[in-house]
Amino acid sequence: MSVARPRPLSGFPEFLPSQRAAEQRVVDSLRETFELHGYASLATRSVEPLDELLRKGETSNEVYVLRRLHAEGGDADSGVGLHFDLTVPLARYVRENAGRLQFPFRRYEISRCWRGERPQEGRYREFTQADVDVIGENELPADADAEVTVVMAEALSRLPLPPVELRVSNRRLVEGFYRGVGIADPAAVMASIDKLDKAGEAAVREMLGALGLDPAQTEQCLALARVRGSDAGFADEVLALGVRDPLLDAGLSDLTAALEAAAPASSERFAVVADLKIARGLDYYTGIVFEGFTAAHGTMSVCAGGRYDALASDGRTTYPGVGVSLGVTRLLAPLIGRGLLDTDRAVPSCVLVALPDEDARPACREIARQLRARGIATELAPRPDRYGRQLRYADRRGIPYVWFPGQPDQVKDIRSGDQTPADAMSWSPPAADLRPRLVTQEPS
Amino acid sequence: MSVARPRPLSGFPEFLPSQRAAEQRVVDSLRETFELHGYASLATRSVEPLDELLRKGETSNEVYVLRRLHAEGGDADSGVGLHFDLTVPLARYVRENAGRLQFPFRRYEISRCWRGERPQEGRYREFTQADVDVIGENELPADADAEVTVVMAEALSRLPLPPVELRVSNRRLVEGFYRGVGIADPAAVMASIDKLDKAGEAAVREMLGALGLDPAQTEQCLALARVRGSDAGFADEVLALGVRDPLLDAGLSDLTAALEAAAPASSERFAVVADLKIARGLDYYTGIVFEGFTAAHGTMSVCAGGRYDALASDGRTTYPGVGVSLGVTRLLAPLIGRGLLDTDRAVPSCVLVALPDEDARPACREIARQLRARGIATELAPRPDRYGRQLRYADRRGIPYVWFPGQPDQVKDIRSGDQTPADAMSWSPPAADLRPRLVTQEPS
Repeated sequence: MSVARPRPLSGFPEFLPSQRAAEQRVVDSLRETFELHGYASLATRSVEPLDELLRKGETSNEVYVLRRLHAEGGDADSGVGLHFDLTVPLARYVRENAGRLQFPFRRYEISRCWRGERPQEGRYREFTQADVDVIGENELPADADAEVTVVMAEALSRLPLPPVELRVSNRRLVEGFYRGVGIADPAAVMASIDKLDKAGEAAVREMLGALGLDPAQTEQCLALARVRGSDAGFADEVLALGVRDPLLDAGLSDLTAALEAAAPASSERFAVVADLKIARGLDYYTGIVFEGFTAAHGTMSVCAGGRYDALASDGRTTYPGVGVSLGVTRLLAPLIGRGLLDTDRAVPSCVLVALPDEDARPACREIARQLRARGIATELAPRPDRYGRQLRYADRRGIPYVWFPGQPDQVKDIRSGDQTPADAMSWSPPAADLRPRLVTQEPS
Repeated sequence: MSVARPRPLSGFPEFLPSQRAAEQRVVDSLRETFELHGYASLATRSVEPLDELLRKGETSNEVYVLRRLHAEGGDADSGVGLHFDLTVPLARYVRENAGRLQFPFRRYEISRCWRGERPQEGRYREFTQADVDVIGENELPADADAEVTVVMAEALSRLPLPPVELRVSNRRLVEGFYRGVGIADPAAVMASIDKLDKAGEAAVREMLGALGLDPAQTEQCLALARVRGSDAGFADEVLALGVRDPLLDAGLSDLTAALEAAAPASSERFAVVADLKIARGLDYYTGIVFEGFTAAHGTMSVCAGGRYDALASDGRTTYPGVGVSLGVTRLLAPLIGRGLLDTDRAVPSCVLVALPDEDARPACREIARQLRARGIATELAPRPDRYGRQLRYADRRGIPYVWFPGQPDQVKDIRSGDQTPADAMSWSPPAADLRPRLVTQEPS
């Protein structure tokens, strides 16, 4: 099995153990917040039939289809592909299990997704998403819009990650406004407005002209897209544009209510702002839409979502939903890759039990067992080397404590050098030392 | 989007929310044990280049290759496939990152694997494995054999699952014995002995004859395979067969030591026994081998592993390892499917805050916030229905407590009917109610 050193696969990020511990701490924290809000965990299968995956059309060329390597002839494709998001599996799962679910159905899923894209900074072929959604049966109160916003705000506010600005708009507001200025095809205009951040206003002005908007309509659309604010004042700005339409009024009222309900969850780490240029390219959004950004990730959003009045339907029953999807890999991998996010240990161990000599191994094993029984992650030194070497073993792995068996036992904090007598039946480290700590640096 | 109800995909198991909570409790508990022993988490990518996957040859027809749906012509295959176990990725990861890892390298991974097999009871196309391995650099002390046994024993003993019997043998012992009776191709004999449980002794006797063994050799091999015992007495039985060989002696001594070191971890839920018919078909095992069984799963093993003296090599350095792989899906999915393992809730919520009227919503949200801030999973009733309906909402989901805002607030345990005054700043449920509880039934 003598072979050359393998190289990483582009678009399939992997971490070293201390980095993986950081990813896991983040995922555990997200999960804890989601569960505190009553969201149930789902782990949908990784594959869907191709007709489920291709329902949205536009993403079809990103799908990885599974083929059995040694399947015969025409039977090669399995007819299934890897999911590229967690919304398609959710819609299918709800239709498949509707009779056995309780609505409103709150679920989170933190799972891997795959896209056969050309990899580049922030785009991966394999990546983890963390989604929260609330699904109703035929109806879903407007209150759910604010709820998912608050859940994501709390989840991200607890973590020492770059501050997120969640920009919020409402499709009904925007559609109503477009209708009010006499635009026939609001979807095409929204698709152009969605390009504002990347293409700039001049380019979008041309696009809107090419769609047949007259200059006054174009300027109104651009003016709406400029509206931004962290409180209800944005509504006055919209009204000041002088457009009137019942759908606009309804959307404005929904968005104002969602912003008000989400306001208490705003923090230094997570700001919720109305930003009416947020359109989200996807057809199925029908109400509130969000997109979250961090300064560290430029113009690429780290979370996104919105309301869809028909996530799924079985003909008789329609399942409206609202949700937010956080790009865990997109958020973390660049930080980890640049050394801005890590943990202080390569192992979960809090204590290394030193081994004075080979005969002491059973007694040392018993010390380790006693510490573990009280929730303290412990490993045993592999060999009865001299103590200086055993201390270096701990140091290289970031293990904070070394335990020396004796009469009495002693425990040394290798960071401070402090050494004190200790009993494995009662000694505990400070709570912050029990698990690896997240270590962050500001981007320079 | 009106479509027919989707049907499950054979071989890709999925769970309802209360069932998924059971799977997650089991995985969390495994993880906690692995980390208490100092094993670091890895999450390797899901794919490997085909040459990594096909190195073992025999499994090649089970591999799912990824193909980009809309790739052009000959470029269709991506050259990568989904991993079918967690050992191949570990071997590749160690070679790729050796210079950045600390040895002995203890890692666990709990991840999904895929095989393009025909699905049947206990065989899945997508399944979760939980692996623990210790990897050395050029050398790995024999002590590691017992260590991984103890870790898996403790991990499984903590869980209310069917008792596991871990059957242990040693390749060197068996090879030495075969050499001692004059057998030229021990690997072929081991492959036949490995079929004893399924094919029976008479069929295996014929296979051994067909391999060219004379009747005396055949009977010696079958006699060795019958040796079984939970203490060191098994060694006397082996010696009583009268075969002598230095490799046999070394293997016997290793296995005796491993059994002695693992003995304290044996429990009603996890018995470790020497069983010399355990051979493990795979070539790369070179020392201890294990296979674990439960009565509930018949002759299909639920965990397996062993020692490999060359998990990986880069020419200069060899990485020996020892590990055990637990089939999480294989163990849990049949129990969950037959209703023998579940949790008592469809949601993580411990408390439902009842909504007396729409105006009370902000105050109710604040109660929920206070409870969550103290780690109590809480959801808010969706509508100000009459209280009987709100209680049924909680009951249908298995939420144990309903909170009624008032002067003072009251909290009702809906299982006992007890209702008491309570303050959201200080009330706590019993610890066992904080999270969904595992509910098990014996197989009938």
